[in-house]
Amino acid sequence: MVEPKVWTAALLVIGDEILSGRTQDKNVGQVAAWLNRQGIRLAEVRIVPDDQARIADAVNALRSAYDYLFTTGGIGPTHDDITVDSIAAAFGVPVVIHPEARRILERDDETRGGVTDARLRMARVPEGAELIPNPLSGAPGVRLGNVLILAGVPTLAAHMLEALDGTLEGGRPMVSVTIGALAAESEVADLLRETEAAHEGVAIGSYPFGKDGHYGANFVIRSEDGAAAEQCAADLGRRLADAGYDAVPGGI
Amino acid sequence: MVEPKVWTAALLVIGDEILSGRTQDKNVGQVAAWLNRQGIRLAEVRIVPDDQARIADAVNALRSAYDYLFTTGGIGPTHDDITVDSIAAAFGVPVVIHPEARRILERDDETRGGVTDARLRMARVPEGAELIPNPLSGAPGVRLGNVLILAGVPTLAAHMLEALDGTLEGGRPMVSVTIGALAAESEVADLLRETEAAHEGVAIGSYPFGKDGHYGANFVIRSEDGAAAEQCAADLGRRLADAGYDAVPGGI
Repeated sequence: MVEPKVWTAALLVIGDEILSGRTQDKNVGQVAAWLNRQGIRLAEVRIVPDDQARIADAVNALRSAYDYLFTTGGIGPTHDDITVDSIAAAFGVPVVIHPEARRILERDDETRGGVTDARLRMARVPEGAELIPNPLSGAPGVRLGNVLILAGVPTLAAHMLEALDGTLEGGRPMVSVTIGALAAESEVADLLRETEAAHEGVAIGSYPFGKDGHYGANFVIRSEDGAAAEQCAADLGRRLADAGYDAVPGGI
Repeated sequence: MVEPKVWTAALLVIGDEILSGRTQDKNVGQVAAWLNRQGIRLAEVRIVPDDQARIADAVNALRSAYDYLFTTGGIGPTHDDITVDSIAAAFGVPVVIHPEARRILERDDETRGGVTDARLRMARVPEGAELIPNPLSGAPGVRLGNVLILAGVPTLAAHMLEALDGTLEGGRPMVSVTIGALAAESEVADLLRETEAAHEGVAIGSYPFGKDGHYGANFVIRSEDGAAAEQCAADLGRRLADAGYDAVPGGI
Protein backbone atom coordinates (compact mmCIF):
# COMPACT_ATOMS: atom_id res chain seq x y z
CA MET A 1 0.00 0.00 0.00
CA VAL A 2 1.34 3.42 -0.94
CA GLU A 3 1.16 5.86 1.98
CA PRO A 4 -0.82 8.97 1.05
CA LYS A 5 1.31 12.12 0.86
CA VAL A 6 1.33 14.19 4.06
CA TRP A 7 1.03 17.87 3.13
CA THR A 8 3.01 20.19 5.37
CA ALA A 9 3.28 23.90 6.01
CA ALA A 10 5.44 26.23 8.09
CA LEU A 11 4.43 29.59 9.53
CA LEU A 12 6.86 32.49 9.82
CA VAL A 13 5.66 35.13 12.28
CA ILE A 14 7.43 38.43 11.58
CA GLY A 15 7.53 41.08 14.25
CA ASP A 16 9.56 42.69 17.02
CA GLU A 17 6.32 43.16 18.97
CA ILE A 18 5.94 39.40 19.50
CA LEU A 19 9.59 38.85 20.45
CA SER A 20 9.53 41.79 22.88
CA GLY A 21 6.53 40.31 24.69
CA ARG A 22 4.42 43.39 23.90
CA THR A 23 1.90 41.52 21.77
CA GLN A 24 0.49 38.02 22.32
CA ASP A 25 0.51 36.13 19.02
CA LYS A 26 -2.90 34.93 17.88
CA ASN A 27 -1.98 33.73 14.40
CA VAL A 28 -0.29 30.41 15.22
CA GLY A 29 -3.54 28.99 16.58
CA GLN A 30 -5.78 30.23 13.80
CA VAL A 31 -3.42 29.23 10.98
CA ALA A 32 -3.02 25.78 12.61
CA ALA A 33 -6.77 25.25 12.88
CA TRP A 34 -7.34 26.44 9.30
CA LEU A 35 -4.57 24.16 7.97
CA ASN A 36 -6.12 21.15 9.78
CA ARG A 37 -9.32 21.77 7.81
CA GLN A 38 -7.36 21.89 4.53
CA GLY A 39 -5.63 18.56 5.28
CA ILE A 40 -2.27 20.29 5.71
CA ARG A 41 -0.13 19.81 8.81
CA LEU A 42 1.53 22.78 10.51
CA ALA A 43 5.00 21.31 10.96
CA GLU A 44 7.05 24.27 12.20
CA VAL A 45 6.70 27.87 13.36
CA ARG A 46 9.45 30.47 13.54
CA ILE A 47 9.22 33.97 14.96
CA VAL A 48 11.87 36.43 13.76
CA PRO A 49 12.41 40.19 14.21
CA ASP A 50 11.84 42.96 11.65
CA ASP A 51 15.21 42.36 9.98
CA GLN A 52 15.45 41.78 6.24
CA ALA A 53 18.34 39.30 6.30
CA ARG A 54 16.78 37.26 9.12
CA ILE A 55 13.41 37.15 7.35
CA ALA A 56 14.93 36.22 3.98
CA ASP A 57 17.04 33.42 5.52
CA ALA A 58 14.04 31.95 7.31
CA VAL A 59 11.88 32.20 4.16
CA ASN A 60 14.43 30.31 2.09
CA ALA A 61 14.93 27.62 4.75
CA LEU A 62 11.21 27.05 5.26
CA ARG A 63 9.84 27.33 1.72
CA SER A 64 12.16 24.54 0.56
CA ALA A 65 11.52 22.30 3.59
CA TYR A 66 7.69 22.32 3.46
CA ASP A 67 4.92 22.31 0.85
CA TYR A 68 3.69 25.75 1.90
CA LEU A 69 5.05 28.67 3.87
CA PHE A 70 2.72 31.20 5.44
CA THR A 71 3.97 34.50 6.83
CA THR A 72 2.12 36.92 9.11
CA GLY A 73 3.05 40.52 9.87
CA GLY A 74 4.98 43.38 8.34
CA ILE A 75 2.77 44.26 5.35
CA GLY A 76 1.43 47.64 6.52
CA PRO A 77 2.45 51.14 5.36
CA THR A 78 5.19 52.02 7.89
CA HIS A 79 8.99 51.81 7.89
CA ASP A 80 8.99 48.64 10.00
CA ASP A 81 6.85 46.80 7.39
CA ILE A 82 9.56 45.05 5.40
CA THR A 83 8.08 41.63 4.68
CA VAL A 84 7.55 42.18 0.93
CA ASP A 85 11.09 43.52 0.45
CA SER A 86 12.54 40.62 2.45
CA ILE A 87 10.65 37.96 0.51
CA ALA A 88 11.56 39.56 -2.82
CA ALA A 89 15.20 39.45 -1.66
CA ALA A 90 14.79 35.78 -0.68
CA PHE A 91 13.51 34.95 -4.18
CA GLY A 92 16.01 37.30 -5.89
CA VAL A 93 13.28 39.28 -7.67
CA PRO A 94 12.55 43.04 -7.65
CA VAL A 95 9.65 44.69 -5.85
CA VAL A 96 6.98 46.11 -8.16
CA ILE A 97 3.65 47.90 -7.76
CA HIS A 98 0.83 45.41 -8.42
CA PRO A 99 -1.69 47.19 -10.72
CA GLU A 100 -4.76 45.50 -9.18
CA ALA A 101 -3.60 46.25 -5.61
CA ARG A 102 -3.07 49.89 -6.64
CA ARG A 103 -6.60 50.00 -8.08
CA ILE A 104 -8.06 48.60 -4.83
CA LEU A 105 -6.26 51.20 -2.71
CA GLU A 106 -7.23 54.04 -5.10
CA ARG A 107 -10.85 52.95 -5.02
CA ASP A 108 -10.84 52.84 -1.19
CA ASP A 109 -9.17 56.26 -0.94
CA GLU A 110 -11.24 58.03 -3.62
CA THR A 111 -13.29 59.95 -1.06
CA ARG A 112 -10.11 60.98 0.80
CA GLY A 113 -8.59 62.76 -2.22
CA GLY A 114 -6.59 59.82 -3.56
CA VAL A 115 -4.06 57.31 -2.31
CA THR A 116 -0.96 58.58 -0.43
CA ASP A 117 2.60 57.38 -1.05
CA ALA A 118 2.60 55.62 2.31
CA ARG A 119 -0.66 53.78 1.54
CA LEU A 120 0.73 52.88 -1.89
CA ARG A 121 3.48 50.94 -0.08
CA MET A 122 0.78 48.33 0.50
CA ALA A 123 0.48 47.75 -3.28
CA ARG A 124 4.13 46.67 -3.48
CA VAL A 125 4.69 42.95 -4.19
CA PRO A 126 7.60 40.74 -5.25
CA GLU A 127 7.60 40.53 -9.07
CA GLY A 128 5.46 37.62 -10.27
CA ALA A 129 3.20 37.57 -7.18
CA GLU A 130 -0.58 37.21 -7.11
CA LEU A 131 -2.95 38.87 -4.65
CA ILE A 132 -4.91 37.21 -1.83
CA PRO A 133 -8.22 39.07 -1.51
CA ASN A 134 -8.92 40.88 1.75
CA PRO A 135 -12.61 41.78 1.90
CA LEU A 136 -12.23 43.64 5.22
CA SER A 137 -9.72 46.37 4.42
CA GLY A 138 -8.34 47.24 0.99
CA ALA A 139 -4.79 46.02 1.41
CA PRO A 140 -4.55 42.48 0.05
CA GLY A 141 -2.34 39.54 0.97
CA VAL A 142 0.25 38.27 -1.47
CA ARG A 143 1.13 34.85 -2.91
CA LEU A 144 4.46 34.06 -4.55
CA GLY A 145 4.99 30.40 -5.45
CA ASN A 146 4.38 28.36 -2.31
CA VAL A 147 4.71 31.40 -0.02
CA LEU A 148 1.51 33.03 1.27
CA ILE A 149 1.96 36.46 2.83
CA LEU A 150 -0.77 37.41 5.32
CA ALA A 151 -1.42 40.43 7.53
CA GLY A 152 -0.29 40.37 11.16
CA VAL A 153 -3.54 41.78 12.58
CA PRO A 154 -5.42 38.54 13.41
CA THR A 155 -8.82 39.65 12.03
CA LEU A 156 -7.23 40.62 8.70
CA ALA A 157 -5.27 37.35 8.58
CA ALA A 158 -8.53 35.47 9.24
CA HIS A 159 -10.20 37.09 6.22
CA MET A 160 -7.26 36.24 3.99
CA LEU A 161 -7.39 32.60 5.16
CA GLU A 162 -11.12 32.57 4.40
CA ALA A 163 -10.34 33.78 0.88
CA LEU A 164 -7.83 30.91 0.50
CA ASP A 165 -10.29 28.26 1.74
CA GLY A 166 -10.19 25.21 -0.51
CA THR A 167 -7.64 26.71 -2.94
CA LEU A 168 -4.57 24.79 -1.73
CA GLU A 169 -3.86 21.16 -2.49
CA GLY A 170 -3.94 19.12 0.71
CA GLY A 171 -4.64 15.67 2.09
CA ARG A 172 -7.22 14.37 4.52
CA PRO A 173 -8.18 16.72 7.35
CA MET A 174 -6.66 15.85 10.71
CA VAL A 175 -9.20 14.35 13.10
CA SER A 176 -8.76 14.75 16.84
CA VAL A 177 -10.76 13.07 19.62
CA THR A 178 -10.35 14.12 23.25
CA ILE A 179 -10.88 12.05 26.40
CA GLY A 180 -10.39 13.46 29.90
CA ALA A 181 -9.83 11.70 33.21
CA LEU A 182 -9.10 12.74 36.81
CA ALA A 183 -5.88 10.76 36.67
CA ALA A 184 -2.36 11.93 37.49
CA GLU A 185 -0.40 11.68 34.24
CA SER A 186 2.27 9.51 35.83
CA GLU A 187 -0.34 6.92 36.90
CA VAL A 188 -1.53 6.35 33.34
CA ALA A 189 1.76 6.86 31.49
CA ASP A 190 2.22 3.13 30.73
CA LEU A 191 -1.40 2.72 29.71
CA LEU A 192 -1.10 5.65 27.26
CA ARG A 193 2.12 4.37 25.71
CA GLU A 194 0.65 0.88 25.24
CA THR A 195 -2.56 2.24 23.72
CA GLU A 196 -0.67 4.42 21.24
CA ALA A 197 1.57 1.51 20.26
CA ALA A 198 -1.50 -0.65 19.55
CA HIS A 199 -2.96 1.81 17.01
CA GLU A 200 -0.98 2.59 13.88
CA GLY A 201 -1.07 6.10 12.43
CA VAL A 202 -2.46 7.54 15.64
CA ALA A 203 -0.73 9.89 18.10
CA ILE A 204 -1.88 10.43 21.69
CA GLY A 205 -0.98 13.66 23.46
CA SER A 206 -1.37 14.06 27.22
CA TYR A 207 -2.15 17.50 28.69
CA PRO A 208 -2.26 17.71 32.48
CA PHE A 209 -4.23 20.20 34.49
CA GLY A 210 -5.04 21.01 38.11
CA LYS A 211 -8.70 21.80 38.85
CA ASP A 212 -10.53 22.24 42.16
CA GLY A 213 -7.70 20.54 44.00
CA HIS A 214 -7.71 17.47 41.70
CA TYR A 215 -5.09 16.47 39.19
CA GLY A 216 -6.28 15.35 35.80
CA ALA A 217 -5.32 15.24 32.16
CA ASN A 218 -6.89 15.44 28.74
CA PHE A 219 -5.74 12.89 26.19
CA VAL A 220 -5.92 14.02 22.57
CA ILE A 221 -5.98 11.28 19.95
CA ARG A 222 -4.99 12.59 16.50
CA SER A 223 -4.98 10.89 13.12
CA GLU A 224 -5.68 11.60 9.46
CA ASP A 225 -7.73 8.40 9.58
CA GLY A 226 -10.93 9.34 11.38
CA ALA A 227 -12.00 5.73 11.99
CA ALA A 228 -8.59 4.89 13.47
CA ALA A 229 -8.83 7.88 15.82
CA GLU A 230 -12.30 6.81 16.99
CA GLN A 231 -11.19 3.19 17.51
CA CYS A 232 -8.16 4.31 19.50
CA ALA A 233 -10.32 6.64 21.61
CA ALA A 234 -12.76 3.82 22.38
CA ASP A 235 -9.87 1.53 23.31
CA LEU A 236 -8.33 4.20 25.55
CA GLY A 237 -11.71 4.76 27.23
CA ARG A 238 -11.97 1.01 28.00
CA ARG A 239 -8.41 0.84 29.34
CA LEU A 240 -8.98 3.88 31.58
CA ALA A 241 -12.23 2.36 32.89
CA ASP A 242 -10.47 -0.97 33.56
CA ALA A 243 -7.87 0.97 35.56
CA GLY A 244 -10.62 2.54 37.65
CA TYR A 245 -10.91 5.99 36.07
CA ASP A 246 -14.01 7.69 34.69
CA ALA A 247 -13.20 8.49 31.07
CA VAL A 248 -14.93 11.72 30.03
CA PRO A 249 -15.59 11.94 26.24
CA GLY A 250 -14.76 15.41 24.91
CA GLY A 251 -12.35 16.09 27.76
CA ILE A 252 -12.55 17.92 31.06
CA MET B 1 33.71 53.73 21.86
CA VAL B 2 33.30 49.99 22.10
CA GLU B 3 29.68 48.91 21.62
CA PRO B 4 28.45 46.93 24.64
CA LYS B 5 27.72 43.28 23.90
CA VAL B 6 24.09 42.52 23.06
CA TRP B 7 23.08 39.32 24.85
CA THR B 8 20.67 37.15 22.88
CA ALA B 9 18.48 34.14 23.49
CA ALA B 10 16.26 31.85 21.47
CA LEU B 11 13.20 29.98 22.69
CA LEU B 12 12.28 26.51 21.41
CA VAL B 13 8.65 25.64 22.12
CA ILE B 14 8.20 21.85 21.96
CA GLY B 15 4.75 20.44 21.49
CA ASP B 16 2.24 18.99 19.04
CA GLU B 17 -0.52 20.72 21.02
CA ILE B 18 0.70 24.18 19.95
CA LEU B 19 1.17 23.21 16.29
CA SER B 20 -2.26 21.55 16.15
CA GLY B 21 -3.93 24.73 17.38
CA ARG B 22 -5.30 22.93 20.46
CA THR B 23 -3.34 25.01 22.95
CA GLN B 24 -2.56 28.72 22.83
CA ASP B 25 1.10 29.26 23.72
CA LYS B 26 1.65 31.51 26.71
CA ASN B 27 5.38 31.02 27.16
CA VAL B 28 6.72 33.23 24.34
CA GLY B 29 5.33 36.35 26.02
CA GLN B 30 6.47 35.53 29.54
CA VAL B 31 9.94 34.37 28.52
CA ALA B 32 10.30 37.55 26.39
CA ALA B 33 9.27 39.82 29.25
CA TRP B 34 11.56 38.01 31.71
CA LEU B 35 14.52 38.20 29.29
CA ASN B 36 13.97 41.97 28.87
CA ARG B 37 14.43 42.35 32.61
CA GLN B 38 17.69 40.33 32.50
CA GLY B 39 19.10 42.51 29.69
CA ILE B 40 18.88 39.64 27.20
CA ARG B 41 17.09 39.99 23.88
CA LEU B 42 14.74 37.26 22.61
CA ALA B 43 16.02 37.01 19.04
CA GLU B 44 14.17 33.97 17.67
CA VAL B 45 11.43 31.50 18.54
CA ARG B 46 10.85 28.11 16.95
CA ILE B 47 7.95 25.75 17.57
CA VAL B 48 8.55 22.10 16.65
CA PRO B 49 6.57 18.87 17.13
CA ASP B 50 7.26 16.07 19.63
CA ASP B 51 9.88 14.47 17.36
CA GLN B 52 13.36 13.71 18.67
CA ALA B 53 15.27 14.43 15.47
CA ARG B 54 13.43 17.72 14.88
CA ILE B 55 14.02 18.83 18.47
CA ALA B 56 17.71 17.87 18.42
CA ASP B 57 18.32 19.67 15.10
CA ALA B 58 16.65 22.85 16.36
CA VAL B 59 18.57 22.68 19.66
CA ASN B 60 21.90 22.43 17.89
CA ALA B 61 21.07 25.24 15.44
CA LEU B 62 19.86 27.60 18.16
CA ARG B 63 22.32 26.93 20.99
CA SER B 64 25.24 27.81 18.72
CA ALA B 65 23.56 30.89 17.20
CA TYR B 66 22.60 32.63 20.47
CA ASP B 67 24.02 33.13 23.97
CA TYR B 68 21.19 31.17 25.58
CA LEU B 69 18.56 28.70 24.44
CA PHE B 70 15.41 28.18 26.46
CA THR B 71 13.05 25.28 25.79
CA THR B 72 9.49 24.84 27.07
CA GLY B 73 7.44 21.66 27.02
CA GLY B 74 7.92 17.91 26.99
CA ILE B 75 9.39 17.30 30.47
CA GLY B 76 6.46 15.49 32.08
CA PRO B 77 6.09 11.76 32.84
CA THR B 78 4.31 10.51 29.69
CA HIS B 79 5.48 8.90 26.43
CA ASP B 80 5.20 12.21 24.50
CA ASP B 81 7.63 13.92 26.91
CA ILE B 82 10.90 13.48 24.99
CA THR B 83 12.68 16.79 25.52
CA VAL B 84 15.42 15.44 27.81
CA ASP B 85 16.19 12.52 25.47
CA SER B 86 16.27 14.86 22.47
CA ILE B 87 18.62 17.37 24.11
CA ALA B 88 20.90 14.59 25.33
CA ALA B 89 21.02 13.34 21.73
CA ALA B 90 21.79 16.86 20.51
CA PHE B 91 24.76 17.09 22.90
CA GLY B 92 25.80 13.47 22.29
CA VAL B 93 25.59 12.54 25.99
CA PRO B 94 23.63 9.77 27.75
CA VAL B 95 20.53 10.30 29.87
CA VAL B 96 21.07 9.67 33.59
CA ILE B 97 18.96 9.87 36.75
CA HIS B 98 19.90 13.05 38.66
CA PRO B 99 20.27 12.06 42.35
CA GLU B 100 18.92 15.38 43.70
CA ALA B 101 15.89 15.29 41.35
CA ARG B 102 15.19 11.72 42.49
CA ARG B 103 15.38 12.84 46.14
CA ILE B 104 12.90 15.68 45.45
CA LEU B 105 10.42 13.32 43.80
CA GLU B 106 10.83 10.68 46.53
CA ARG B 107 10.24 13.31 49.22
CA ASP B 108 7.09 14.55 47.44
CA ASP B 109 5.76 11.02 46.99
CA GLU B 110 6.61 9.72 50.47
CA THR B 111 3.00 9.83 51.62
CA ARG B 112 1.84 8.05 48.45
CA GLY B 113 3.96 4.95 49.05
CA GLY B 114 7.01 6.06 47.08
CA VAL B 115 7.84 7.32 43.63
CA THR B 116 6.55 5.39 40.60
CA ASP B 117 8.61 4.53 37.53
CA ALA B 118 6.60 7.03 35.47
CA ARG B 119 7.21 9.84 37.97
CA LEU B 120 10.89 8.90 38.09
CA ARG B 121 11.05 9.77 34.38
CA MET B 122 11.03 13.37 35.56
CA ALA B 123 14.37 12.85 37.35
CA ARG B 124 16.07 11.96 34.04
CA VAL B 125 18.56 14.57 32.76
CA PRO B 126 21.30 14.72 30.12
CA GLU B 127 24.60 13.74 31.77
CA GLY B 128 26.35 16.80 33.22
CA ALA B 129 23.16 18.83 33.69
CA GLU B 130 22.20 20.93 36.73
CA LEU B 131 18.69 21.37 38.12
CA ILE B 132 16.57 24.52 37.97
CA PRO B 133 14.50 24.64 41.18
CA ASN B 134 10.72 24.44 40.84
CA PRO B 135 9.14 25.48 44.14
CA LEU B 136 5.60 24.76 42.88
CA SER B 137 5.70 21.06 41.99
CA GLY B 138 8.54 18.68 42.65
CA ALA B 139 9.78 18.15 39.11
CA PRO B 140 12.65 20.58 38.44
CA GLY B 141 13.84 22.25 35.25
CA VAL B 142 17.22 21.36 33.82
CA ARG B 143 20.24 23.36 32.68
CA LEU B 144 22.93 21.95 30.39
CA GLY B 145 25.55 24.44 29.22
CA ASN B 146 23.69 27.40 27.71
CA VAL B 147 20.45 25.41 27.32
CA LEU B 148 17.71 25.96 29.91
CA ILE B 149 14.93 23.36 29.88
CA LEU B 150 11.64 24.62 31.35
CA ALA B 151 8.18 23.10 31.83
CA GLY B 152 5.48 23.73 29.22
CA VAL B 153 2.74 24.51 31.74
CA PRO B 154 3.01 28.32 31.96
CA THR B 155 2.69 28.58 35.76
CA LEU B 156 5.49 26.01 36.22
CA ALA B 157 7.68 27.77 33.64
CA ALA B 158 7.09 31.07 35.50
CA HIS B 159 8.37 29.58 38.75
CA MET B 160 11.48 28.22 37.03
CA LEU B 161 12.14 31.66 35.49
CA GLU B 162 11.76 33.19 38.95
CA ALA B 163 14.36 30.74 40.27
CA LEU B 164 16.73 31.84 37.46
CA ASP B 165 16.23 35.57 38.15
CA GLY B 166 19.57 37.36 38.15
CA THR B 167 21.62 34.19 37.57
CA LEU B 168 22.36 34.70 33.85
CA GLU B 169 24.89 37.15 32.49
CA GLY B 170 23.13 39.87 30.49
CA GLY B 171 23.38 43.49 29.41
CA ARG B 172 21.24 46.51 30.10
CA PRO B 173 17.50 45.86 30.34
CA MET B 174 15.51 46.90 27.28
CA VAL B 175 13.50 50.08 27.89
CA SER B 176 10.31 50.70 25.95
CA VAL B 177 8.20 53.87 25.87
CA THR B 178 4.78 53.94 24.20
CA ILE B 179 2.95 56.88 22.62
CA GLY B 180 -0.49 56.56 21.05
CA ALA B 181 -2.30 58.77 18.55
CA LEU B 182 -5.59 58.67 16.64
CA ALA B 183 -3.66 58.75 13.39
CA ALA B 184 -3.91 56.40 10.42
CA GLU B 185 -0.52 54.69 10.17
CA SER B 186 -0.08 55.73 6.56
CA GLU B 187 -0.49 59.43 7.46
CA VAL B 188 2.42 59.35 9.90
CA ALA B 189 4.65 56.83 8.11
CA ASP B 190 7.17 59.49 6.93
CA LEU B 191 7.22 61.20 10.32
CA LEU B 192 7.97 57.86 12.06
CA ARG B 193 10.75 56.96 9.66
CA GLU B 194 12.39 60.39 10.04
CA THR B 195 12.13 60.28 13.84
CA GLU B 196 13.71 56.84 14.04
CA ALA B 197 16.54 57.92 11.70
CA ALA B 198 17.28 60.93 13.94
CA HIS B 199 17.84 58.77 17.06
CA GLU B 200 20.65 56.24 17.05
CA GLY B 201 20.21 52.93 18.87
CA VAL B 202 16.44 53.35 19.01
CA ALA B 203 13.76 51.36 17.16
CA ILE B 204 10.18 52.55 16.68
CA GLY B 205 7.44 50.00 16.11
CA SER B 206 3.99 51.01 14.86
CA TYR B 207 0.94 48.97 15.93
CA PRO B 208 -2.36 50.03 14.38
CA PHE B 209 -5.79 49.51 15.89
CA GLY B 210 -9.42 50.37 15.17
CA LYS B 211 -11.43 51.62 18.16
CA ASP B 212 -14.93 53.15 18.35
CA GLY B 213 -14.89 53.81 14.61
CA HIS B 214 -11.52 55.61 14.70
CA TYR B 215 -8.20 54.43 13.34
CA GLY B 216 -5.19 54.90 15.51
CA ALA B 217 -1.81 53.42 16.32
CA ASN B 218 0.53 52.92 19.24
CA PHE B 219 4.18 53.71 18.64
CA VAL B 220 6.63 51.75 20.77
CA ILE B 221 10.10 53.24 21.16
CA ARG B 222 12.64 50.63 22.30
CA SER B 223 16.28 50.98 23.28
CA GLU B 224 18.82 49.58 25.73
CA ASP B 225 19.66 53.23 26.43
CA GLY B 226 16.80 54.50 28.59
CA ALA B 227 17.69 58.18 28.11
CA ALA B 228 17.79 57.76 24.32
CA ALA B 229 14.35 56.11 24.38
CA GLU B 230 12.91 58.97 26.45
CA GLN B 231 14.47 61.62 24.17
CA CYS B 232 13.12 59.89 21.08
CA ALA B 233 9.66 59.63 22.66
CA ALA B 234 9.66 63.35 23.50
CA ASP B 235 10.76 64.19 19.94
CA LEU B 236 8.06 61.94 18.45
CA GLY B 237 5.45 63.56 20.70
CA ARG B 238 6.48 67.03 19.43
CA ARG B 239 6.42 65.92 15.79
CA LEU B 240 2.97 64.35 16.19
CA ALA B 241 1.68 67.54 17.85
CA ASP B 242 3.17 69.67 15.05
CA ALA B 243 1.31 67.46 12.56
CA GLY B 244 -1.96 68.11 14.39
CA TYR B 245 -2.32 64.88 16.44
CA ASP B 246 -2.82 64.51 20.17
CA ALA B 247 0.05 62.34 21.37
CA VAL B 248 -1.06 60.15 24.28
CA PRO B 249 1.81 59.12 26.60
CA GLY B 250 1.56 55.46 27.57
CA GLY B 251 -0.47 54.65 24.48
CA ILE B 252 -4.17 54.25 23.71
